[in-house]
Amino acid sequence: MKEYNYTKVSKATEVLFKKMGCSSDDARNISEILLRADLRGIKTHGLVRLPEYYRLVRLGKIIPDASPEVVHSSPSTAVLDAGKGFGMVAGIKAMELAIEKAEVAGTGWVGVRNSNHFGIAGAYALMAAQKDMIGITMTNANPLVAPTFSRKPLLGTNPMAYAVPAGEYPPFLADFATAPVSRGKLDAWTLLGQLSPEGLLQDEQGQPTVEANTLTRKGSIRTLGGEVETGGHKGFCLSAVVDIFSAVLSGANFGPTVIPTLGYLAGDNQSDEDKGIGHFFGAMRVDAFQKKEAFLTQMDRWIEEFRKAAPVAGKERIVIPGDPERELEEKHLENNTIPLMGDVVEKVSETAQELGTDFLTD
Amino acid sequence: MKEYNYTKVSKATEVLFKKMGCSSDDARNISEILLRADLRGIKTHGLVRLPEYYRLVRLGKIIPDASPEVVHSSPSTAVLDAGKGFGMVAGIKAMELAIEKAEVAGTGWVGVRNSNHFGIAGAYALMAAQKDMIGITMTNANPLVAPTFSRKPLLGTNPMAYAVPAGEYPPFLADFATAPVSRGKLDAWTLLGQLSPEGLLQDEQGQPTVEANTLTRKGSIRTLGGEVETGGHKGFCLSAVVDIFSAVLSGANFGPTVIPTLGYLAGDNQSDEDKGIGHFFGAMRVDAFQKKEAFLTQMDRWIEEFRKAAPVAGKERIVIPGDPERELEEKHLENNTIPLMGDVVEKVSETAQELGTDFLTD
Repeated sequence: MKEYNYTKVSKATEVLFKKMGCSSDDARNISEILLRADLRGIKTHGLVRLPEYYRLVRLGKIIPDASPEVVHSSPSTAVLDAGKGFGMVAGIKAMELAIEKAEVAGTGWVGVRNSNHFGIAGAYALMAAQKDMIGITMTNANPLVAPTFSRKPLLGTNPMAYAVPAGEYPPFLADFATAPVSRGKLDAWTLLGQLSPEGLLQDEQGQPTVEANTLTRKGSIRTLGGEVETGGHKGFCLSAVVDIFSAVLSGANFGPTVIPTLGYLAGDNQSDEDKGIGHFFGAMRVDAFQKKEAFLTQMDRWIEEFRKAAPVAGKERIVIPGDPERELEEKHLENNTIPLMGDVVEKVSETAQELGTDFLTD
Repeated sequence: MKEYNYTKVSKATEVLFKKMGCSSDDARNISEILLRADLRGIKTHGLVRLPEYYRLVRLGKIIPDASPEVVHSSPSTAVLDAGKGFGMVAGIKAMELAIEKAEVAGTGWVGVRNSNHFGIAGAYALMAAQKDMIGITMTNANPLVAPTFSRKPLLGTNPMAYAVPAGEYPPFLADFATAPVSRGKLDAWTLLGQLSPEGLLQDEQGQPTVEANTLTRKGSIRTLGGEVETGGHKGFCLSAVVDIFSAVLSGANFGPTVIPTLGYLAGDNQSDEDKGIGHFFGAMRVDAFQKKEAFLTQMDRWIEEFRKAAPVAGKERIVIPGDPERELEEKHLENNTIPLMGDVVEKVSETAQELGTDFLTD
């Protein structure tokens, strides 16, 4: 891990998205959300993704100048067709629309279909929190997770994010995959030759395994909670709800019908029936439920009660969801730095070459 | 477990709620939701609760003739103050209001404060599904669950329910506590002298334990997912979101400020600041997102894809959330039977005596 100048990385990344065919505005927005993952220490969702994005652009799975369009609406809802564009472009437009609807109706709810990977879910939820609204984001994804009793993966790691504004404190932000472990973590364990903890994975037959590379051998991640006796069926419910809200409501590809990126890149699964992945965004004005000041004060109290509670031996305190990532982001923005792995810069530079330009060479 | 005549049990239960001071309508509604838990095999939330409800009525914590009132609203939202009434009375009114709002605004979202236990969350979510809406229910509850790194329980088992209408098939219904195990199951293990599976419980110091009676010795249930390495912090996020949506949005008692029923019954914790527990209800018209037929057909397809997927060895199929409970309920309604434990009938009969009447004696 090395620290780079954030302004330079940001400008250079924007250039690459423009070279791919994005408008200046879209290039800036995509770049900002992508790099925000690195600033917040969520490196699996950051710049490392850029080369894959470009391969999908070249295959026509991502259309860089697509413009999301509203295809259905009611006073508090809408559905956008992302036109196979970058997920970030649709994501920003969808959350802006949800916020706009909430201004009038109290809440706004926007589904997106025909979309692609949108980076970190929390970035959109936080847009609502900045307006004194609760922000909600969900998305479905490549099938990697086996429902309870299933031999095969049928669901994605299907993240959900909830941002809740507070008064004196920064927003609460719960941003989590509904699966217990990410592909990124499994890859890291595999590289280190490390086994996975018990209960997280299964092999091609659906039998428990601790082999961290099980996904490369047709295995699956299990649902949050693991076995039924430890609540794994609840994890299945949760992933299923994210899939239904993101994809069935909007008309995107759901569950096992999502076309896996890796398979697609390898030339498999180029189904005709590609409505992309789907997302779901919500914005709820807190003053649609209570006087704004009363809500914000009570949320401050919530944060204080959990922060001051007694921790177990060896831990300093209970972590308020979102605190560690925000603190990291603030530190980096103060120093105008961004942490990147050496091979990420190298691989993005190769993509830059393909695009007829350089990345961070001056 | 013995089967009783459902009509008789139902009428006799209604009488008891009327004797407690409920109106005829409320008595019928409370009784119906309470017994629906038994019909569906969720006996921890059924008639077994009645004697405790009555003790709370006698202590003034539940006011049987309270009438929930709208205290705040916007086109798609409202908050009800339940006036310390039965949770079922507020729950039904809140979901009816959410549905009414959704008819006009596309979605409806109603918070409830100053409430009490409302039975099974799924009953309210299903009200929306019957109207071709997605129904959502959440509630907070007595603190029994320790957040990640917390020594003490600060959150309830905080259930969430999502009902999704389908076309040819009955609704999908995910109705689950966000904690991995219920107090009812722990009590059952304790009775059988059985240990809990690893990873579910902690003792008074916050150290892991498999002693099923840990709650009676100041221990806690852990969050869904267990340790951080198996995703337990995601379970904390989930329980926290249910607490915030149910109680901070509505202005009820949240997290550790919820007054535990058992402590209350024992004369502890009779705090002045009692805004009861809180609930959160949502209704989303599916045709606010897509043409109704398109949605229902796609949801049928979702159910089929999961039902037909290959199961692991020893399992017949993947269980669609809600199927087993609905099948059980249908079977009982067909036979006009309800399954009840012997000691439940005995204990409810004792309560009936206190109320100056009988229970199932003819």
